[in-house]
This record gives sequence, structure tokens and C-alpha cells, in this order.
Amino acid sequence: MQTLDVLTLGNAIVDVLAHTDDAFLAARKLNKGSMQLIDEALAEELFAAMGPATIVSGGSGANTAVGVASLGCRSAFVGKVRDDELGRLYIHDLHAVGVGFDVAPAEDGPATARSFILVTPDGERTMNTYLGASQHLRPDDVDPHQVRAARIVYLEGYLWDPPQAKQAFRKAMTIAHEADNRVALTLSDPFCVDRYREEFLRLIRDGSVDVLFANIHELKSLYQTADEATALAALREERVVGVVTRSADGALVVTREATRAVPACPVETLVDTTGAGDLFAAGFLAGLALSLDHADCARLGALSAAAVIQHLGARPQADLRDLARQAGLLA
Amino acid sequence: MQTLDVLTLGNAIVDVLAHTDDAFLAARKLNKGSMQLIDEALAEELFAAMGPATIVSGGSGANTAVGVASLGCRSAFVGKVRDDELGRLYIHDLHAVGVGFDVAPAEDGPATARSFILVTPDGERTMNTYLGASQHLRPDDVDPHQVRAARIVYLEGYLWDPPQAKQAFRKAMTIAHEADNRVALTLSDPFCVDRYREEFLRLIRDGSVDVLFANIHELKSLYQTADEATALAALREERVVGVVTRSADGALVVTREATRAVPACPVETLVDTTGAGDLFAAGFLAGLALSLDHADCARLGALSAAAVIQHLGARPQADLRDLARQAGLLA
Repeated sequence: MQTLDVLTLGNAIVDVLAHTDDAFLAARKLNKGSMQLIDEALAEELFAAMGPATIVSGGSGANTAVGVASLGCRSAFVGKVRDDELGRLYIHDLHAVGVGFDVAPAEDGPATARSFILVTPDGERTMNTYLGASQHLRPDDVDPHQVRAARIVYLEGYLWDPPQAKQAFRKAMTIAHEADNRVALTLSDPFCVDRYREEFLRLIRDGSVDVLFANIHELKSLYQTADEATALAALREERVVGVVTRSADGALVVTREATRAVPACPVETLVDTTGAGDLFAAGFLAGLALSLDHADCARLGALSAAAVIQHLGARPQADLRDLARQAGLLA
Repeated sequence: MQTLDVLTLGNAIVDVLAHTDDAFLAARKLNKGSMQLIDEALAEELFAAMGPATIVSGGSGANTAVGVASLGCRSAFVGKVRDDELGRLYIHDLHAVGVGFDVAPAEDGPATARSFILVTPDGERTMNTYLGASQHLRPDDVDPHQVRAARIVYLEGYLWDPPQAKQAFRKAMTIAHEADNRVALTLSDPFCVDRYREEFLRLIRDGSVDVLFANIHELKSLYQTADEATALAALREERVVGVVTRSADGALVVTREATRAVPACPVETLVDTTGAGDLFAAGFLAGLALSLDHADCARLGALSAAAVIQHLGARPQADLRDLARQAGLLA
């Protein structure tokens, strides 16, 4: 019996958010809108230079699991924290919204991972991630029963950064397919795609992945083209359901048979784009689990993304199921 | 030479904010809008039961110091954190906005203090504070040079809870008056007034306090009356400048000679009242340091309070000096 709609695997990361300006990014040669990995020394340096912080739980895959739960579906998350103060916060924040989390925290080694997220006045976020304990996610942390119990397993491209986590990722993928469940992958970030392009293409092409999430920058990076149409044409040739987000221009669901466009939801005040992609994925995956058609899955994604970018932090503060019902997307 | 406009003393507390509903408060017999002290066991219990958390630096006196700095004045804070992760965050957040902080963190003993702040849909906050390391503030932590260098020393009523902190408070008060500087006190909370009514009245009446901040609930508690007019009449008899905040009804500046009323600033969306009183005090104190008249001090207070209640957390996210200039309150 499938007791979970969506199981997500990802880096367990606490977000340390600060408002900043473009000059701060420029002075440090930070690529606006992207994620860079930093070591402990650079983490200390950046923290000292940045403004006052707001701390909330984050991590792409975990944000998605929280979104799925907020839409009324059953989700769980697999990732690694340390048994420190921020690790306890992290586990609390998942359990508090009904997301399953059973991975034992690390008892030694580096502290719980943190991402210093600089939010510019235009609402864009630039992430600087110290992976800490999250890189110690191991294949043993993946419980085969839990994977078999989930309709969809959703994997972060970011997991390709910590070597052990990649093995955990592969293990979950294999078990899911053996159980006839679906596997979804997000490309995570254009620079992440740059680091692992060949491996990601192999996963997409050898049948490891059924649903692929990417924003348009990641898709262009995947196919090494500056042209959107070329990238979309290449995606159309893959044997996956491709879900492409394009910020305010809405989303496309691309299959061999058809390309469906869904507009973005109107946003009153854009505060912080952190979590937009994660929550789009949450809506789409919840829709898939509920057997909605692809366009309605994307509409649920657009609604969820719009909700999260109107406040600071990457997890929904509103009840997404209520919002989806008001929009007529859920009964 | 006076190199500081305002020096504040208070409990150094990290705020752990969560959205909740009235039923949650009722089930736990929590007094909406007030602060209760909790021990470590109750802190654990409440944390486990509450929703996902947002962590930001707080503490009444520290919030006021940050507000003063945001208004372009020079401020510093005296309080005690532990040398743990949240303590480092706390010090960072003060230094990041230019607030002086020189007290050495505790190297042992309890963790950095935290207040679990439950925010209801009406924007009211209910605080549950575990004092942790903050109760180890000692007289030795008060640097006489720093106190002498400050035009105004501002003290939290909350400091009366940890016994050692009370001695630090008295030391700062004495040194400030010896140096002919002004001393301001906030009553902090109606239940805090209940705990220390006689001592607070003595401070007000023996010349220890020059400026008294209270909201109307604290003032009624001080004079043990349910009647606003009676409380205000009693305040008028004291030899202090009384600053009384009344939420949306604006503020009163009460002296023996006159009572001046200043309206509240209009608020688009009330999100979280945490810090409203602290930021009102910041505006008033900055105005005093700049030798504005009492009504303009109160207007600066109203503007600062309005800014902070339109987002989650007790410290300003906007540049208050810019806002005050736009409003014509600062040049």
C-alpha cells in the first residue's frame, strides 16, 4: 500500500536570510539568483559582512515536501542534520507541518548545513551554501520501505554535490522503479547543471527519471544553448515529462506529444523568490499524486509558488490547500 | 564627551516566532499579548507543540537600541548571551546595524535566552521566555565609561526578573545620574509590573527615573486600577516624563504641566505587534537625544512602531531615518 504521496531527498539546510543590495553582490562577485557552495571560512566571512539575519528551515527538497503537505498530501523528507540547535529546529519544523522525517541526526562532524541567502530589493535571492552535516547523507539513511511506500520520489540535483548523497539518491531511484513508482528530478541550479551535465543527461536518457523539473536557465545550461526554443526542442526529444518554469512568464509542461503553457499567478508584492521553484514542484507533484492532468498540476504549482514569494522564507505560511480550493483547483 | 545617544540594558533574547491560533493559547492558558517566564522543560514542551519557527534576534532593550541606530543615532546594548550558535547570531545582528555590544558571552551555564512568541491572526504576540544565559548579566558587565558616555540610559523592567541583572541595572542608573545623564525605564509588561510594583514605584518616586515608558495595560497595573483616567491622573502626579502608548489610539506624553496626545501612524497590514513598544521607545529616545519637543519625539515613536508591526519580527527592516525624513520629522 502506498502510504506516501511524495518522498523527497535533498540537502537539509537552514536558511540564514538577509536583505542586501546589488553592490554587496557585485563587490563579492556573487552570481545573482544562483547558488554557490562555500567552505566554513568563507561562511564565517560572509556572515560577518552581511546584515541582520532571519533564520528559517530550508533546503530545496524539504521545502517541496512541506509544500506537498500544505496541499493536503502525505509527504516525507530524507536528509541529514547534525544533533545541534539548528538541527533540532529543522526536525521540529518538518514534524510541525506533518512531514515525515526519520533520519538519525549525525552525532559528530560538521554542524547542520546553512545557506546564507542574500535577498536584493528586486526579491531575487543569491545563495551561499555551507553543506556541513548535509553532506553526510548516506545510502543507509534511505529506508527501502519508505521509498516503496511513496507514489513519487523527488530528488534534488544538488544531491550530486556530496558524493555519499549521490549514492543515496541512486539507491532511492532504483528501489522506486523496482516498485513501479515514479521518479522526479529537479536540476536545481544552472551551475549545478554545469558541474554534472553529462550525468544528469544520462539519468534523463536511460529511463532513471520520469519527470524533470527545470527553470529556463537550468534548461539552457543543460543543453548548452542561449536560445530558449532550442532548449525546449531538445527537451521535447527526451522521454520524460518536462516541467519548465519561467518566473513571471509562467510554466510549460513539455512532452513528446504536446507542450502546454500555464500562466504565472498574479503576485501583489514580490518579497523574496527563495523557494519559488521548490513550491512550484510541490504543487505539480501533489497534482500528479492526485492524478490531475498536467495543466492542472502546473496550475497548482503556479499557485504554490506565488504564495511563497510574497513573504521572506521558502516555506508556505498560508494553508495551500485552502488557497487551491478557493482557486477551484482542489475539491 | 558623549559618544552615545542611547545605551540600553536588557535581557538578550532570541525570538522564536510561530504563527498560531487563539485555541492554542486557550488550551495552554496563555495570556494573550503578555510575557510569561518559562523553565527549560516548559520551553521544550511548548517548542514541540508549536508550528514552524522563524528565528530572529529580539529582546526589548536590544530592539530599542537597533531602532535608535536605524534612526541615525548612536546606540549600544548591554546584555548577556552564551557563546553558542544563537549567541553569535545575536552579536552579529547588533554589530551588523551599528549597535555597540561589548559584553563578553558566557562560556558556561545555560544557552542563549529564547522567547517563544506565538503570533495570532490578529497580529497580537504572546511571549514565553526562557531566560537562559541572559539572567547571568552582572554588575561587572556594565562599563562605567560607556554609561557616562551616553546621553540616555534606557532600562527594561524585565531586568528585575534575574536578580543579578537588577544590580547591573542599579549600577547603570547610579552612574548615569552621577554624570548628569538621563535615565529612562520601560515597565515592559503588566505581569512584570505585578511582580515588582512597589520597587518600580519607588524608582519612579525617588528620582531614579526621568522618563517612564508604559503601555496603558502596564500603567493600569502599576496603579492597580481598571480605569484609564485614574491611571493617567496618578501618572500626572509623578515627577517624570510619562510616555503612554495605547496601540491604535496613539500615545500620550504626560507631565505635571501638560498631556500631549499624538495619533498612531496608519498601518496597511498588521502582521505582528512584536516590538511595537520597543520601537516606539526607540523613536521617542532618538527624538530626546536630538532635543526634539515631546510631541515630535512621540511622532518619531509612532512612525517607528508602525514600521515594525507590518512584518514578522521585532526589529526594523526599513531604514527608519529615511521614513522619518519622508514624514518631515528628521532633517
